[in-house]
Amino acid sequence: MQYHVNGDLVPAEDATVSVADRGFQYGDAAFETLRAYGGECFQWDAHRERLQRTAETLGFGDAVPDDLRERVAETLDANDLADAYVKVSVTRGVQPGKLTPAAEVDPTVVVIVKELPRGGTDGDRVWEDPATVQTVRTRRVPDAALPTDAKTHNYLNGILGRLELRRAATADHSADECLMRDVDGTVVEGATSNLFFVTENGLRTPAADLDLLPGVTRSVVMDLADAEDFPVETGRYSVDAVRNADEAFLTNSTWEIRPIASVDGIEIGSGPMTKLLQRLFDERVEELHYG
Amino acid sequence: MQYHVNGDLVPAEDATVSVADRGFQYGDAAFETLRAYGGECFQWDAHRERLQRTAETLGFGDAVPDDLRERVAETLDANDLADAYVKVSVTRGVQPGKLTPAAEVDPTVVVIVKELPRGGTDGDRVWEDPATVQTVRTRRVPDAALPTDAKTHNYLNGILGRLELRRAATADHSADECLMRDVDGTVVEGATSNLFFVTENGLRTPAADLDLLPGVTRSVVMDLADAEDFPVETGRYSVDAVRNADEAFLTNSTWEIRPIASVDGIEIGSGPMTKLLQRLFDERVEELHYG
Repeated sequence: MQYHVNGDLVPAEDATVSVADRGFQYGDAAFETLRAYGGECFQWDAHRERLQRTAETLGFGDAVPDDLRERVAETLDANDLADAYVKVSVTRGVQPGKLTPAAEVDPTVVVIVKELPRGGTDGDRVWEDPATVQTVRTRRVPDAALPTDAKTHNYLNGILGRLELRRAATADHSADECLMRDVDGTVVEGATSNLFFVTENGLRTPAADLDLLPGVTRSVVMDLADAEDFPVETGRYSVDAVRNADEAFLTNSTWEIRPIASVDGIEIGSGPMTKLLQRLFDERVEELHYG
Repeated sequence: MQYHVNGDLVPAEDATVSVADRGFQYGDAAFETLRAYGGECFQWDAHRERLQRTAETLGFGDAVPDDLRERVAETLDANDLADAYVKVSVTRGVQPGKLTPAAEVDPTVVVIVKELPRGGTDGDRVWEDPATVQTVRTRRVPDAALPTDAKTHNYLNGILGRLELRRAATADHSADECLMRDVDGTVVEGATSNLFFVTENGLRTPAADLDLLPGVTRSVVMDLADAEDFPVETGRYSVDAVRNADEAFLTNSTWEIRPIASVDGIEIGSGPMTKLLQRLFDERVEELHYG
């Protein structure tokens, strides 16, 4: 396996960053997770724009390299991968040992890839089964403390949520994803996914002005629903509203659309809306990437 | 300069971690910042205990090596340093690429050092001038989202506060430290320091059950005050209460006790209580480390 570090392809085992890198010291870094289908990243522009926004929020907007897309392509090529998970990170780099960032930034840019199955209508799912979801005590970090639309290497909040699942796991049962609430108790998202659910009134998803990261796949799903004239309501929902849904699913770039089997042990499962959206999503990927 | 990485002393320029290390990917790491005086770390036991607590909060309590103190001593020796800044980090190490942590942990342990002036009664201050402090909009992360008594590599919250100061800086004036509030508007601490202030009723500091990291130096200062029968009130205070103080100072391991020159442009400055506590602190360091 080869990764891309600061402009060079290097064997994965030699892909390192300095212990003085602010990405290591403070999680002072922006990132994106993408999925490549047939050699090209799905929704590249949307991911690139969000990476730029995150870097600007962190005060190093100039650090995202112009040739990032080429670096990703080189990494996929070097590993002979067409269908892959891609993670791109841009850190503030090494600076003198002070918390206050220096204005001058020499960023560290890392591209990591990993093989995934083919996507599209002839593809295979990345996940084995629908997700089992459990409400956790850990609350999402509020926007006032860390802008929630910034995707950064400060990821302990989601990890603490996942640790709650691991601690609650039994031999028979372990949940795959957290249902996370904001500090006020409103449902916002999973640790690494956005949430949709279906009621008799249609498709619903927590509003983007809540403390959540509105994902690229979330936005694709909303477009697909819109194109079919399915109303999507965005709002503030309780855990009970999700538990009582007719269908529910999670979205992220890797999982695409993953049905929710149960929330807190209450069965929900897939249904016609989820299945249709999965089919529409697969068709879009097929058309754009394998056409 | 030599650093200690996973049990070995290595030249600083070769001190690296894998890009797959969770410390880099997610800031999934515990750390402590200490100060060595005359070759020995001040308050080692308190720092060691907090590092352990942080690691337990993150679910890798077994990862903190038993010989950590020896690793620090080796690093100081290798660099011929007696008076130094010491940063010790323990990460969850490299694991398969999933957010949910694996139970089996092979930690990455890093010790970084940097020369500092001598401390104690014959020492020099690390800082040039008293601190200028400014209230920032960025709020501290609430305990419900990330336990505030855990000292982790998720440090963007403080960095965003410091970026506000950098953006507000002019040719004539730039603030050194943030005054940070919790999401409710109560004053909690600085980006890397705890806050004390003095009113006609005595010494005050935000209560440890607020969203703050109660520092080791904060605790030493409270002990010193207690030994002199100075009452220390812990409570919930507003920005106005701090602005109206007779004296105010910040504490952390590196700065020790640093007077606050001004808050939001309002002069406060040092005074008899701050000066006495500085003297008592220096005497304790002198006695313990240079005696």
